[in-house]
Amino acid sequence: MTLIKKKVGVLGGGQLGRMLMEAANRLNVELVIVDPLKNSPAKQLSSGTHIDLPFTDPNAIIELANKVDIITAEIEHVDTKTLTEIVEAKLSSPESINKNQKYGVENVNVYPSPHSIRTIQDKYLQHKVLFENNIPVAPFEDCPTLEDAVKTAQKFSYPFLLKAKKGAYDGRGNIVVKSESELVDAWNHLSKNKISSSDSSDSGIYAEKFVAFSKELAVMVVKSLDDQFVCYPIVETVQKDNICHVVWAPGCIDGLQAKKAQSLACNAVKALSTLPVNIQTQNPDTPAAKSSISKIPKSAGVFGVEMFLLTNGEILVNEIAPRPHNSGHYTIEACETSQYENHLRAILGLPIGSTNLKVNYAAMVNILGTTNKGDHNSENSKQNGYSAMDSIYQNILSVPGATLHTYGKEEAKPGRKMGHVTVVSDSPSEIQHRVYQILNIIDGKPFTNKVEPKDFSSVYSYKPAPLVGIIMGSDSDLPVMKLAAKQLESFDIPFELTIVSAHRTPDRMVEYAKTAKDRGLKVIIAGAGGAAHLPGMVAALTTLPVIGVPVKGRCLDGVDSLYSIVQMPRGIPVAAVAINNADNAGLLAARMLGSYVSSFSSGMADYLNKIREEVEVKIEKLENVGYENYN
Amino acid sequence: MTLIKKKVGVLGGGQLGRMLMEAANRLNVELVIVDPLKNSPAKQLSSGTHIDLPFTDPNAIIELANKVDIITAEIEHVDTKTLTEIVEAKLSSPESINKNQKYGVENVNVYPSPHSIRTIQDKYLQHKVLFENNIPVAPFEDCPTLEDAVKTAQKFSYPFLLKAKKGAYDGRGNIVVKSESELVDAWNHLSKNKISSSDSSDSGIYAEKFVAFSKELAVMVVKSLDDQFVCYPIVETVQKDNICHVVWAPGCIDGLQAKKAQSLACNAVKALSTLPVNIQTQNPDTPAAKSSISKIPKSAGVFGVEMFLLTNGEILVNEIAPRPHNSGHYTIEACETSQYENHLRAILGLPIGSTNLKVNYAAMVNILGTTNKGDHNSENSKQNGYSAMDSIYQNILSVPGATLHTYGKEEAKPGRKMGHVTVVSDSPSEIQHRVYQILNIIDGKPFTNKVEPKDFSSVYSYKPAPLVGIIMGSDSDLPVMKLAAKQLESFDIPFELTIVSAHRTPDRMVEYAKTAKDRGLKVIIAGAGGAAHLPGMVAALTTLPVIGVPVKGRCLDGVDSLYSIVQMPRGIPVAAVAINNADNAGLLAARMLGSYVSSFSSGMADYLNKIREEVEVKIEKLENVGYENYN
Repeated sequence: MTLIKKKVGVLGGGQLGRMLMEAANRLNVELVIVDPLKNSPAKQLSSGTHIDLPFTDPNAIIELANKVDIITAEIEHVDTKTLTEIVEAKLSSPESINKNQKYGVENVNVYPSPHSIRTIQDKYLQHKVLFENNIPVAPFEDCPTLEDAVKTAQKFSYPFLLKAKKGAYDGRGNIVVKSESELVDAWNHLSKNKISSSDSSDSGIYAEKFVAFSKELAVMVVKSLDDQFVCYPIVETVQKDNICHVVWAPGCIDGLQAKKAQSLACNAVKALSTLPVNIQTQNPDTPAAKSSISKIPKSAGVFGVEMFLLTNGEILVNEIAPRPHNSGHYTIEACETSQYENHLRAILGLPIGSTNLKVNYAAMVNILGTTNKGDHNSENSKQNGYSAMDSIYQNILSVPGATLHTYGKEEAKPGRKMGHVTVVSDSPSEIQHRVYQILNIIDGKPFTNKVEPKDFSSVYSYKPAPLVGIIMGSDSDLPVMKLAAKQLESFDIPFELTIVSAHRTPDRMVEYAKTAKDRGLKVIIAGAGGAAHLPGMVAALTTLPVIGVPVKGRCLDGVDSLYSIVQMPRGIPVAAVAINNADNAGLLAARMLGSYVSSFSSGMADYLNKIREEVEVKIEKLENVGYENYN
Repeated sequence: MTLIKKKVGVLGGGQLGRMLMEAANRLNVELVIVDPLKNSPAKQLSSGTHIDLPFTDPNAIIELANKVDIITAEIEHVDTKTLTEIVEAKLSSPESINKNQKYGVENVNVYPSPHSIRTIQDKYLQHKVLFENNIPVAPFEDCPTLEDAVKTAQKFSYPFLLKAKKGAYDGRGNIVVKSESELVDAWNHLSKNKISSSDSSDSGIYAEKFVAFSKELAVMVVKSLDDQFVCYPIVETVQKDNICHVVWAPGCIDGLQAKKAQSLACNAVKALSTLPVNIQTQNPDTPAAKSSISKIPKSAGVFGVEMFLLTNGEILVNEIAPRPHNSGHYTIEACETSQYENHLRAILGLPIGSTNLKVNYAAMVNILGTTNKGDHNSENSKQNGYSAMDSIYQNILSVPGATLHTYGKEEAKPGRKMGHVTVVSDSPSEIQHRVYQILNIIDGKPFTNKVEPKDFSSVYSYKPAPLVGIIMGSDSDLPVMKLAAKQLESFDIPFELTIVSAHRTPDRMVEYAKTAKDRGLKVIIAGAGGAAHLPGMVAALTTLPVIGVPVKGRCLDGVDSLYSIVQMPRGIPVAAVAINNADNAGLLAARMLGSYVSSFSSGMADYLNKIREEVEVKIEKLENVGYENYN
């Protein structure tokens, strides 16, 4: 019994299809896979019958259309011409009934729409549609001829990117051009390998200005048939040799920036899933264009949106995949609904599942094919009949919180995606440690608890948004307040520290307190002296717990600050600590976070032992030297 | 490429086998399923070839043994005689080589060991082995004849349980006997349906004393080949018509009780997996017995341990399943490693994965086959070709945090396990609400946000361990401290409240503070007056955050209490609130928990709106009546 008795055809049967099959099996949705490989990764997970033909083959698509109700794709390099014909047959007027009958596909839907896929296939067109819909993208220029490329080089200056419009993936088809001499070679290289285009005057090459980005971000967007756009968390991706290598979720950006990036990504998907591809040649207000737009079939499914975070804080959309994406693998273990299940829900018209993270932190590490570099135990390996890959797989199982996914590919060719690991944790330092453990194993080493952070931190360091905000009314409070910072540092708790004065920067205080939770803070420590209003006013403007540190002023011995902080009216609590005791404020914040983060609370147990031992040393000394000689 | 190039044969291909297949697919371990059903739930998830014979058929087991390296079972009602022969062939001396060759199975391991499975199959023997290993079980007696049963009845008094030793499951084979007249019928019924026993003098019936339990608990225990015993969290199970219906994780018991139950479960599994079944007839110290013990093959895999929590706090082991268990389905979404993956890891000799919950709360609801009671939309259903089951499945997808598992069974016979839903949440009230939403849908109603708790709370109410402990030095502090309790209640935060005096019950205070974290508390609120030592002393004895409420005494206006609480030395923080302001202590605890629990922080946002609106009403009144008439 299928969920809603609809069969889904999938073009492509690689690892994305495999994980889609996993989700379909749970929902009891029948998938029919089109892939030339008889035993492709996706087909291995199903006892059903599939189609052993290339997903680019029109006959394979027609055969599929005769077997299923909905067609989707796990790869964008599919035959959109045939897909469009199928959709048009469905949408067209009575005179095309014969064609429908010829295909026998009059009830087949294609999601995402062939229009979306076609626009995305052509990276120049994709860029153009995004640009025309006011989505920020890197400046770009069409380069039909070498002369155009030379002109563009003058405009963009070196280095810039020369790109094939079609068929590019994992860095192939992209060349960074650093000088005019390189330009000619690059242009010739790309134009030689170009994918055949219907327009023979088009070189299939365009240029993109090089943008200085500080991070690469990505997000999965689910588009439902009824035009909801639901976003997953923003993640940070670390590429290696143009292949996604590590994904950190959530990404190391603050919550407000993340919201901005999510909204941008939704708008980008909207632009690509609702506009006709030929919008640029038409006036969209003409009746013909309007009718054409109304005929554009609906798009649905998950889309992977890759973005650049520039050094100036601006976010640009890089490119979009009309399918589940490597940067969304982590959702299987870390989110309430996986990208694969939500892709199926979207194209089947089922309710979209919640996309919330259900863990504090998650990361994904790709496992690429390797030559036998795990030779630390190659003798052992041979004896046991293990390969280097097997040894990597096995060692990964020792990493706490790690879930291994292997894709069932026969040959571990170097660079081939063989599997991935998702790892989860409740603390930011632990997730980083676990990723380093995995990277160490992938480098061919055995599992160890003691990895050298310096071996990985230059590329893979994870700097998540701060959990604690330390603020103070004046820089004169810093000598006291920095003790809180030092305590947090010793517990590996990420924090931010700044000056916010209730009386001199009231607007800043309101802004700070009101955005604190959305930016990702979980606790605020506020220090102030005299008429110490900062902690209480901040508490009135946020739902976060606020710890108040009374800073001793020139008179009244700090009692003024203490009373101002602790005697809050009913309704708005402040957690007051002792006068000038910012140490305890840091420790209290660590205890609060430790209620839900085990590594912080075990750190606190260690700390309590440490301070007990410090006293024990003094007890011993006192016993040894006697009270008269003690100093 | 298989993970360690070993093939695993599985006896039984139902839903447990299906979820085992899911885990095996990810690890790339090849499973061969033995099940009479050609398209059984487990086989649907694999393109490999399987054996379409009953798992009780010796020939099927021999055929399997010739194809795989390890045999395991997803059901305990298997042919242990043949399994034992396979294991003995492997372990036996050279003279039995011919037998090995006949079987061709000299390298096949069986996990769990046939001994474990055989002991567990016979519930009387299982009970006896547990009892002889000092595991607390309900009193029991063998009843080979009706006369024995009558004698036992006198000993146990009515009601008591009469049970078939073998072949029982989901309540079948168990009869509650309430009187002597019922006894004869029950004995005859069970003895008529008894599973053939090698010992024909054995009626196959035994009796168990009825124990008054307050909850049914369960836990999955992983036993590795190298004798590690790793426990999952203790869950609470709610049965309906003797079938597990809802599972709550963690169960509603405090952390210390949970640890006790885990240790009991580990010992129970140890007893069943390391002792020879015939220990009771032998002196284990004789050389013959010792040699026989050394020949007992190792057991490995996950075991489901069902327990009773008695009203007096005692815990008894009820029964054990030598396989993944319905009460462990939740581990797929809620734990760092699922029970299915850990079963494979255990029998393959791979590292056992961490069994920690990765979410705060999880629950599982079974979906049983139903007649078309979803007739609220039966017209609609017919039109769309939906069945009642489809309608249930679809509606469940609307419940936030829910993951649906369907088992691919063709016929939805009433009472048949068709699928299950796992649901996760960060808050205890939300998990309960979500379970009620699911139960409502299973009752044939559409998805709604507004379920009536009273429709479900009598059976399914979830009372998790308290998150906040409110303590006070004296009952005279109660009028102040109960305000904290009321605030917590309004946020649906479970708490406990008691008297702990630092000066009059110092031992109790130490005990309370030192066990607080392990019992499950996340925040302590301590109120005290005068020389108010309680909050600070408790803080010195726990890693939890402690909120101190200075209670105003007869002199000094509470300033004595305030100073005693707030002026803590460096190292041990207390979060002081205003004098007598226990409201704010409750609110501060809610803010602390809200940092990681979204429903508490959104509750706090609502609360801040409410108190703002209260003032706005007063502002309006003041404007309307003027300051002179305002009262």
